[in-house]
Amino acid sequence: MSLLTVGSVAFDALETPFGKTDKIIGGAATYITLSASYFTKENNLVAVVGDDFPREMIDILKDHGVNTDGLEVRRGGKTFFWSGKYHNDMNTRDTVEVQLNVMADFDPVVPPAYHQSEFLMLGNTAPSIQKTVIERLPRRPKLIMLDTMNFWMDSAWDDLLEVLKRVDVITINDEEARQLSGEYALVKAAAKIQTMGPKTVIIKKGEHGALLFHADSIFFAPALPLEEVFDPTGAGDTFAGGFIGYLASTGDVSFNNMKRGIIYGSAMASFCVEKFGAERLFNLTTEEINDRVLKFVQLSAFELQ
Amino acid sequence: MSLLTVGSVAFDALETPFGKTDKIIGGAATYITLSASYFTKENNLVAVVGDDFPREMIDILKDHGVNTDGLEVRRGGKTFFWSGKYHNDMNTRDTVEVQLNVMADFDPVVPPAYHQSEFLMLGNTAPSIQKTVIERLPRRPKLIMLDTMNFWMDSAWDDLLEVLKRVDVITINDEEARQLSGEYALVKAAAKIQTMGPKTVIIKKGEHGALLFHADSIFFAPALPLEEVFDPTGAGDTFAGGFIGYLASTGDVSFNNMKRGIIYGSAMASFCVEKFGAERLFNLTTEEINDRVLKFVQLSAFELQ
Repeated sequence: MSLLTVGSVAFDALETPFGKTDKIIGGAATYITLSASYFTKENNLVAVVGDDFPREMIDILKDHGVNTDGLEVRRGGKTFFWSGKYHNDMNTRDTVEVQLNVMADFDPVVPPAYHQSEFLMLGNTAPSIQKTVIERLPRRPKLIMLDTMNFWMDSAWDDLLEVLKRVDVITINDEEARQLSGEYALVKAAAKIQTMGPKTVIIKKGEHGALLFHADSIFFAPALPLEEVFDPTGAGDTFAGGFIGYLASTGDVSFNNMKRGIIYGSAMASFCVEKFGAERLFNLTTEEINDRVLKFVQLSAFELQ
Repeated sequence: MSLLTVGSVAFDALETPFGKTDKIIGGAATYITLSASYFTKENNLVAVVGDDFPREMIDILKDHGVNTDGLEVRRGGKTFFWSGKYHNDMNTRDTVEVQLNVMADFDPVVPPAYHQSEFLMLGNTAPSIQKTVIERLPRRPKLIMLDTMNFWMDSAWDDLLEVLKRVDVITINDEEARQLSGEYALVKAAAKIQTMGPKTVIIKKGEHGALLFHADSIFFAPALPLEEVFDPTGAGDTFAGGFIGYLASTGDVSFNNMKRGIIYGSAMASFCVEKFGAERLFNLTTEEINDRVLKFVQLSAFELQ
């Protein structure tokens, strides 16, 4: 089934203990669509860039089957830019610079060809933009998933609550889940968030794995213990893209299938951190992905007898 | 098979956001033997207390089938005392007071009836004491497991390296594994520690679960997401006791059985944190333990197809 993704396509400049980059392709929607492209064939993108955005970068998305008809290239506009620097533990980072540029007044236009998309991924962006996209679809998708962050809780609380009422799945990290719910224990936080709209809550714990709360059930998937995390940028978006891409490819939104989605998403995220930016997502093979998924199976499999 | 445990039996005074206690029974060996008692019938204890230690507390151990012939009650001596206060996140704590008392010159005497113990658990105590116990056993046990902490890395590094050469399994938390190995990534830390002696390395990550490294294989077990952690004291020792108690009860030290041991240990630890001190370990039923283990199975089970 088809997936529609809305979010940022951007320039990033990154610095980690392993080195630094110039402007490279980044943005939530970039990671999400690249990751999802390994699962679903119908991959529709709504985003905005300036005319400073290189054609070759758009071609990379197209090469992965991403439909870029909904990617607005604004004349005379500059692309959203973010630069960040990771601390030595790779778990914390400082934002060095943000230039909103064309994202400042992004008006998400959904081309008619996208209107029948069955899965909708609202990448991390202003809640008002996320809500607008839902409203502009003539038919409610089978499943709507939303990513957000603490910035929007601080600056757009009411809008966030409004859009939350309309989504099926939220993906969020542990600290953000605590901030959104006011609860410290993640079990309680998830239960509270479920009353705010999304019946399914995915809490990402980075190197400590991810928790999936669905009605009264809980599933936990570990992160793969890695020898080296080269650059964590985009890992959460890559996870989300693998998850919803897998669901879209199967059309199955049951709890059991969501578990598989979490494993596929985790596998994709484990690739993402191996190189700077999204580079590792450019040329993966099905065999590599299946091998990685088997490592997850082996990592947590046991038999009681 | 029989298990010999060496470590502290102590008084603790605890303060958590949920309340505080007077002097209650504590100490690594207390938690280990109580937890192990639900699995192995031959549970031998070597420890020392003062004559201020209440008879009823020793009776609790005896009621759980723990052989206390090796528990020295020193005349005129005072029992080891520790008091601590947990921060609001329950993950960090301050030591308020430590009185070594009879632990200051503890000379671990191993009664002849213990000499054929097949499993040896060296609870967290001075590496020199741990080494002495190994030397005083006429026959090397089938499996020797050691727990330690950063305090001994700072104060008894050479002794620690010496005893590490002689053990099969080390259990340690993530920060301690990093300190012991000088490596940040846990995969690298475990590999380094394996060269120091123990072929099996268990890294405890508290609420984030535990990793088992055995030769080239890795197994990950989650911690159960809990609504309330009432008091984390002793959770690591309870985990260790459940793990080695399960191994001793089966006599099987294969990787597959160690995985099961990790699950049983994690289940026991999840009980421990539900009440102050070791109280929750006093009256568990087999049914409660099996139900809890099933929750672990459900938490991480998935099928790829």
